[in-house]
Amino acid sequence: MKVFKIPEATVMRLSVYSRYLNQLAREGVETVSSGDIAKGTGVSSAQVRKDLAYFGEFGTRGVGYKVDELYNHLIKILGLDREWNVIIVGAGKLGSALALYQGFAERGFKIVTVLDVDPDIIGTKLGNIEVEPLELLEERVREQNITIGVIAVPASAAQEVTDRLVKTGVKAILNFSPRVLKVPREVVLRNVDLSVNLEVLSFNLAFNR
Amino acid sequence: MKVFKIPEATVMRLSVYSRYLNQLAREGVETVSSGDIAKGTGVSSAQVRKDLAYFGEFGTRGVGYKVDELYNHLIKILGLDREWNVIIVGAGKLGSALALYQGFAERGFKIVTVLDVDPDIIGTKLGNIEVEPLELLEERVREQNITIGVIAVPASAAQEVTDRLVKTGVKAILNFSPRVLKVPREVVLRNVDLSVNLEVLSFNLAFNR
Repeated sequence: MKVFKIPEATVMRLSVYSRYLNQLAREGVETVSSGDIAKGTGVSSAQVRKDLAYFGEFGTRGVGYKVDELYNHLIKILGLDREWNVIIVGAGKLGSALALYQGFAERGFKIVTVLDVDPDIIGTKLGNIEVEPLELLEERVREQNITIGVIAVPASAAQEVTDRLVKTGVKAILNFSPRVLKVPREVVLRNVDLSVNLEVLSFNLAFNR
Repeated sequence: MKVFKIPEATVMRLSVYSRYLNQLAREGVETVSSGDIAKGTGVSSAQVRKDLAYFGEFGTRGVGYKVDELYNHLIKILGLDREWNVIIVGAGKLGSALALYQGFAERGFKIVTVLDVDPDIIGTKLGNIEVEPLELLEERVREQNITIGVIAVPASAAQEVTDRLVKTGVKAILNFSPRVLKVPREVVLRNVDLSVNLEVLSFNLAFNR
């Protein structure tokens, strides 16, 4: 199945649909319509159909979708039918919170290494992971076949850490630092700005009422 | 200016545009085209024009947009031309990280109160805020005119805390807990699932190459 450029918003909705389908499956529901998915996820049913259409028809007119079939399909599309090894660089408050975040493992993202430079933090445990010194970055990335790097270091260190990860073979970077990072074209970069979430609220508070 | 239902993805892009315009303004740039904004933010120029069109014409054909004018306009649209008082409930790793997150203050979100139930955490300082006991929720929300509540408590406590915030007058809830929350129609709820960010990466790793 060849997939062309898909809007990021679509990918994020597919993720939401997959969670809803998982819930339905656990409840023993066997078939679902785009309308049900729409109601269950707060998206218009036209949008649901449009999103799923990117990946070809896999519903049956009148009957709708087989829950388990569609779920497995979305999981494959999202690349969640396998496990991804993840390194977190920076074990401050945010890095620690991310290392302990339950949601990652549930979706197949395995935090295998957490690094920091602070002697007081190195050696401490986050769940069952021990924070190790930043010097081990290249060694850990190689031996643990890490594909995704999470940047939770201060802005001043973000680009250097990113360069080291990319140079060692990391293919995707999730950046929580405020620094705008440069990566080669073939590397996937995603910047997370947590304040955007509050801005969606303030927008709605200011205008949608 | 009356604004109708705007897609959330648009609001998030407006936020990105506003940051880019702010950067241009600091660099002394006075006018910008939708193409420049597109290049600078990695969005198609058609999308930029479409997003801005929701809020009426404020560019000049051929000349483009006045940077400061467009910036101020977007800031107003995003509800960032004022300060919002925010309460964070839960001062574990994530709650603490959020309380210390610089990005919020920069965009006018003022964390005025952080509450927790853990005696070991209550009384500790996060920046210049002291963590206070959960019992003070109603009192603090009222006296500090808090409109936004951030839920950083375990799933088991999330709904009860949300109910107390809403009952006391909080108008918007940012939920970092995995629990699906119920709020009255007039309250704005946004669920943040950090793993979605990793799923956008895994999707791109699995399919867009």
